[in-house]
Amino acid sequence: MNQRLQQQMAFIRELDQLKHINRRSLLLDKSRMENSAEHSWHVAMAVWLLAEHSDEEIDSAKVMKMMMIHDIVEIDAGDTYVYDPEAMKEKAKLEIQAADRLFNMLPADQALQLRTIWDEFEAGETAEARFAGAVDRLLPVTHNHGTDGKSWKDHHVSVEQILNQNQTIAKGSQSLWQLAKNMILEAASKAGLRQTP
Amino acid sequence: MNQRLQQQMAFIRELDQLKHINRRSLLLDKSRMENSAEHSWHVAMAVWLLAEHSDEEIDSAKVMKMMMIHDIVEIDAGDTYVYDPEAMKEKAKLEIQAADRLFNMLPADQALQLRTIWDEFEAGETAEARFAGAVDRLLPVTHNHGTDGKSWKDHHVSVEQILNQNQTIAKGSQSLWQLAKNMILEAASKAGLRQTP
Repeated sequence: MNQRLQQQMAFIRELDQLKHINRRSLLLDKSRMENSAEHSWHVAMAVWLLAEHSDEEIDSAKVMKMMMIHDIVEIDAGDTYVYDPEAMKEKAKLEIQAADRLFNMLPADQALQLRTIWDEFEAGETAEARFAGAVDRLLPVTHNHGTDGKSWKDHHVSVEQILNQNQTIAKGSQSLWQLAKNMILEAASKAGLRQTP
Repeated sequence: MNQRLQQQMAFIRELDQLKHINRRSLLLDKSRMENSAEHSWHVAMAVWLLAEHSDEEIDSAKVMKMMMIHDIVEIDAGDTYVYDPEAMKEKAKLEIQAADRLFNMLPADQALQLRTIWDEFEAGETAEARFAGAVDRLLPVTHNHGTDGKSWKDHHVSVEQILNQNQTIAKGSQSLWQLAKNMILEAASKAGLRQTP
């Protein structure tokens, strides 16, 4: 087997580990927490289907690729709960170390390609990254809404924290932000969440 | 909320159910069976990274989309084990009914777009569909190889059945078929599989 194929297959095998990284979102039937591999698929599908709601023109195939790889670093760094400020401080450093190790398992041209897309997502400064960030936040809101805010309640998050955290959605799409705000307020009311942190 | 967005969100919520469809492939650490949502992500990543090994020129972004949606019908039809000839007879009919219901939850233009890509994958008559079919088979072989053929052994599958079933890979990529054959023979030997059905 040639060396390129060997490196590609080693990386593809490594990806299996993302199926063991659990997030803080419940599946809609509340049976278990979602893992980051199935979330990556779900959010890439959502980007495909919701692309028309981006406020700016975007290359949706590129945003789908962003979503496919945006959580791969969690194989080393784990999932960080966005409402945990202490963990969020460490997140950037751990994820950069993870990106250095993981993407470099690939042949150099592919390592660079994936790293460039991941860096663009993390920087959040292009239309594609803004829409990716919006849909990546919209899905956990949808899951919390569909499970009556259970995960937010279990983690003692306030309505104000949720609205602040999800402002990211407004940067990519005003119509998705309207939708998200409605879902947040409905779920917060059902769960009886506090107003302030 | 406008009607398009409402339909799109209903479909996106429906997709959550694919996370409950279990396949017959073990994860590489043998801790549990793989589900079809995380498989869809994994196989779309594999298409992205292995596209250069296609024997024919392909539009790899299209093949990634094929992989993202190829198993959505399992939400209604369930996963069919390729080594179960009785179940495979019913599969086509059940999956067409599922495609009719599921894709039509979307606005008509998107329903048509997804259905057209799914039909192309199922027909297997284009370069894109051949490569999609190849990588869709390569991953279960990789998982069986990484778990010493445990799932094949548990289901009493013979080496001959496995080689026949995975000939699909040869239609998309000779180099991936070489790789697959080696993995099949190694795993079969470790698992002590029978030669003939």
